[in-house]
Amino acid sequence: MLERRGRSARMQERRTKTNLAAPFVQRRIGLVSLIDEESVAIIERNADRILDEIGMDFRGDPETLEIFKAAGARVDRERVRFDPGWCREKIKTAPPVFTQHARNAARSVQIGGNAQLFCPSFGPPFVHDMEKGRRYATIHDFREITKLHYSLNAVHHSGGVVVEPVDLPVPVRHLHMAHSHLTLSDKPFMGAVTAPQRARDTIAMAKLAMGDDFVDQNCVLYSVVNTNAPLVMDETMLWALKEYAKAGQCTVVSPFVLGGAMSPVTVAATLAQVLAEVMACVSLIQLIRPGAPAVFGTFFSPLSLRTGAPTFGTPEGTQFQMCAKTLADRLGLPFHSVGALTASKVPDAQAGYESQSQLMGAVMAGVNFIIHATGCLEGLLTTGYEKIIMDADRCAALARFAQGIDFSETAQAMEAFAEIGPGGHFLGAAHTRENFESAFWMGDMSDNGTYEQWIAEGGAWQHDRASARVKQILGDYVAPDMDIAIRESLDDFVARRSFEITGEKA
Amino acid sequence: MLERRGRSARMQERRTKTNLAAPFVQRRIGLVSLIDEESVAIIERNADRILDEIGMDFRGDPETLEIFKAAGARVDRERVRFDPGWCREKIKTAPPVFTQHARNAARSVQIGGNAQLFCPSFGPPFVHDMEKGRRYATIHDFREITKLHYSLNAVHHSGGVVVEPVDLPVPVRHLHMAHSHLTLSDKPFMGAVTAPQRARDTIAMAKLAMGDDFVDQNCVLYSVVNTNAPLVMDETMLWALKEYAKAGQCTVVSPFVLGGAMSPVTVAATLAQVLAEVMACVSLIQLIRPGAPAVFGTFFSPLSLRTGAPTFGTPEGTQFQMCAKTLADRLGLPFHSVGALTASKVPDAQAGYESQSQLMGAVMAGVNFIIHATGCLEGLLTTGYEKIIMDADRCAALARFAQGIDFSETAQAMEAFAEIGPGGHFLGAAHTRENFESAFWMGDMSDNGTYEQWIAEGGAWQHDRASARVKQILGDYVAPDMDIAIRESLDDFVARRSFEITGEKA
Repeated sequence: MLERRGRSARMQERRTKTNLAAPFVQRRIGLVSLIDEESVAIIERNADRILDEIGMDFRGDPETLEIFKAAGARVDRERVRFDPGWCREKIKTAPPVFTQHARNAARSVQIGGNAQLFCPSFGPPFVHDMEKGRRYATIHDFREITKLHYSLNAVHHSGGVVVEPVDLPVPVRHLHMAHSHLTLSDKPFMGAVTAPQRARDTIAMAKLAMGDDFVDQNCVLYSVVNTNAPLVMDETMLWALKEYAKAGQCTVVSPFVLGGAMSPVTVAATLAQVLAEVMACVSLIQLIRPGAPAVFGTFFSPLSLRTGAPTFGTPEGTQFQMCAKTLADRLGLPFHSVGALTASKVPDAQAGYESQSQLMGAVMAGVNFIIHATGCLEGLLTTGYEKIIMDADRCAALARFAQGIDFSETAQAMEAFAEIGPGGHFLGAAHTRENFESAFWMGDMSDNGTYEQWIAEGGAWQHDRASARVKQILGDYVAPDMDIAIRESLDDFVARRSFEITGEKA
Repeated sequence: MLERRGRSARMQERRTKTNLAAPFVQRRIGLVSLIDEESVAIIERNADRILDEIGMDFRGDPETLEIFKAAGARVDRERVRFDPGWCREKIKTAPPVFTQHARNAARSVQIGGNAQLFCPSFGPPFVHDMEKGRRYATIHDFREITKLHYSLNAVHHSGGVVVEPVDLPVPVRHLHMAHSHLTLSDKPFMGAVTAPQRARDTIAMAKLAMGDDFVDQNCVLYSVVNTNAPLVMDETMLWALKEYAKAGQCTVVSPFVLGGAMSPVTVAATLAQVLAEVMACVSLIQLIRPGAPAVFGTFFSPLSLRTGAPTFGTPEGTQFQMCAKTLADRLGLPFHSVGALTASKVPDAQAGYESQSQLMGAVMAGVNFIIHATGCLEGLLTTGYEKIIMDADRCAALARFAQGIDFSETAQAMEAFAEIGPGGHFLGAAHTRENFESAFWMGDMSDNGTYEQWIAEGGAWQHDRASARVKQILGDYVAPDMDIAIRESLDDFVARRSFEITGEKA
């Protein structure tokens, strides 16, 4: 706290700046879909047939099987089959739009409807930066990356496992991750899904920060469970889903699919499979607690059948996403999918092309919650520090894009034409002087100057400019306010639970 | 010719490969527009008002003023004003779809309708490669770049001034450029627009290659004239426009606009201005020769009002393009606009992000003729050798994207689900074995392998891999067949005209 008092001017500036930032994007343009009504009907019919004739396995959790059986699904050992239309009926209680509350109310986000938001990458065990290269991530990296995302106005969410802090024992990682999200940021964040007790710990920590009653009555955690495609839910994911559903917290059901291995080798077939898996799992959420927020999620990477490797930024990735959004709309569920994915190991042009392709596709499709919007390298095995900054700049551009075009009388500027006339120039026009500050989007990370200027400034490639910017942002970072009593209760919780789990003092 | 006989096997392979390449993309997905009917009406009304109340200057060419006057436009010295609706009426004789013929009929391209095609960058005086850096371009570079584009199946057009061959005197450059396009490639190409005699020379050379009658009766040249925004056509561009229109060759009217300087500082106002300029100039083309092919072109770069520099890959760039396409459709004209533009000086991540943004926007918008689809660096001051290869890979991906999704029974793969069932994997499924070759798009320039593999292969960034690929393609290059008599007539024409122009033997 002492440290922060010495930085009051900077804090003030930060507060002023972040007050300006919108907590999410309010989309004002149409959706881009690639699937017509006839094809939607085919995919929906195929998904129904898959659930009816083949069914889905729910493994290692008798309670789930009991719930399904009691509600009228056909349970045969761990295989559950569903009559056509059964899931669609159960899903109707899920809210089409809801709010995930942040501990700072000004940062709360709308999930669904016309909202779009950008969220960090999830899950990489490695980090990369231009100075130190690629290495295993630590809790220090986790914290630095959380500070970066807190500082970037284009990023609306603090994420979940922004990197795996591999220097901490697995059973306590979730405590330190939630502690970092809650103390270093005031943006909304994600809950742990790796064990039911870890989900309960995350909920308990959210209650310390936001109050028991508030958390009981509102969605404050957004957690992603992956099916084990094709057509399997394993017990770990089932337990997490159940904990969050019971607590009324949001669960995203996101089949993780490497196309060609975990689904057939086409977009059309993968759509049917993913729709089937999502419908079955969201039905379960609604049976556990009708009205609990649930989201239709997708992660689809076509496998290279030449090399066996997953690929990113491909035409099929975007085609898939644009169709799946339509299927989610038909179910009345918010839609969650991937952003700036790349297979590149470094922040090079491949990373730029692939990331922009997938991210722009996600924005055009109208994905409500865009995960992996910043930092991805190496197909999510690595988070790049520079990549975070570079991606965030494109998120800002796409946020502007999604807000559509101003056709107001001011924007039409008819008086400027009369003032300037043929052959003149508009730099000095009254309309330009009055509107230039808000006129065109300008990025932070693009060098638009002349070649001579660029050479004079050192001829840095974008990843090198991003390197400098990372340091600047981290140097300027000031933690968001937090009541001292809350902070202490979080510290105490982490210490106590760590001791209970490991038998060692932290 | 001797050289080529020694490479017959490679020639055969090349022929087989290029036979597979489609001459242009047949788009099967919907158009993405960002402008509704009400806003279209506003922009069209404003364009009409600009032409009626302010007018456009046609400079240095009395014949143009006479043509306009005779047809009923209001001419006041060099200023021409048009009654609302007048231009729209005149434009009706322009064909909505036409063919630009290549000397190899299999390479002829459809302009307009559901066709999309990718064309090289136009105009850069510099080239860049990773070995030699940035330098003035020469005719040697022009030829190497033409060979590259001939070899890349994703690029459908040989372009025009792919780089400025600054080692040749200005008055003879057009001869050597047309000679290169005609002999090193058999894809369609662009005509010179820098002087009327140069336009006539290009037409004469096309006739040598394709026959007088054929050229008289068909469109074989595609040439771009830029207005001098705002609302001026200068005499050089007018002369070129008139030459090509008289010859029945295609003219693209493409206002070149740095937004904020050459147009007001908004998308809405720039749309009205560009529409006005295009309508006036296409009217002129139709008055000169009713039915002559004409295209609605745009080049819009928002000026950074912070630095005075043009910017690329911005939200407004794509917004503008998506609206302008709708305006072109309303006029019944094919639409030409920009592709992979970037301000970056080098093939770095900035180049990747910006280029993909603008290129993907162009494909989504449904731009028929995508110019600057490959090679752009430094806002078209430089063509990058590596950048050509990298962009072409993304053109290939977007071509696949534009062809839409297969929802056939084969693609639905319902039998694969029955075969594999929950928890299995599809790699060995009969459906996968039967379809994997055509299943997913796989790029040439993305590294999708593991980190360890990548390191073992040298840890090359994309621009370095592209460097190797440039050398490989140029090493494998085999010129397309050309009748010896035609080749000699082209050589003779260039020698004779060079002597006439410069008084020196080449």
